[in-house]
Amino acid sequence: MSITAKNPICKVSLKLLGDYWTMLIVDMLSDGPRRFRNLEQNIEDINTATLTTRLKSMVAAGLIQRSEQSRADVSYELTDLGKQAIPVLNAVNKFSDYAETSANK
Amino acid sequence: MSITAKNPICKVSLKLLGDYWTMLIVDMLSDGPRRFRNLEQNIEDINTATLTTRLKSMVAAGLIQRSEQSRADVSYELTDLGKQAIPVLNAVNKFSDYAETSANK
Repeated sequence: MSITAKNPICKVSLKLLGDYWTMLIVDMLSDGPRRFRNLEQNIEDINTATLTTRLKSMVAAGLIQRSEQSRADVSYELTDLGKQAIPVLNAVNKFSDYAETSANK
Repeated sequence: MSITAKNPICKVSLKLLGDYWTMLIVDMLSDGPRRFRNLEQNIEDINTATLTTRLKSMVAAGLIQRSEQSRADVSYELTDLGKQAIPVLNAVNKFSDYAETSANK
């Protein structure tokens, strides 16, 4: 149908959701809220600076919400918009299953 | 379910399909084969060098197939694996519809 190439909002979404770390953070938060340290420990190879930057830009884009219970207790969770990114991740996972199966044929 | 972060093949797929130009090319080819010049004319802001590089890497990744009828007549089409990337694009388009609707509320 080639609709994406004609639609500016689709192109913005493609750039937003095309970011590797952003999608791994969406993946980690798909189960529910997590603390900064928990994200840092569970996302392989991410460093503190990258995680900090991505969380900030994801808050700005409206994908996640930051809640500060205390200075030492800050957590992040997906907004309603952020939850709409989960089907994208599921589609990537299906693609990857297909790629794995055809590689093993 | 946070499965992506634990699965190396999912992460490779996320990097592959996270590329903006790759996804716009998948989008253009979702209707059927196209010639190089047709892609170049229909993908806004892409330059010849970027299109050439992306097409090469997409052939290498198994997403598209290159057919050369003559030197002046080269076309590209999605492979079976490449077609599995269309649902990812559809999910991004749904996300973008949601983003647009909530922005207009």
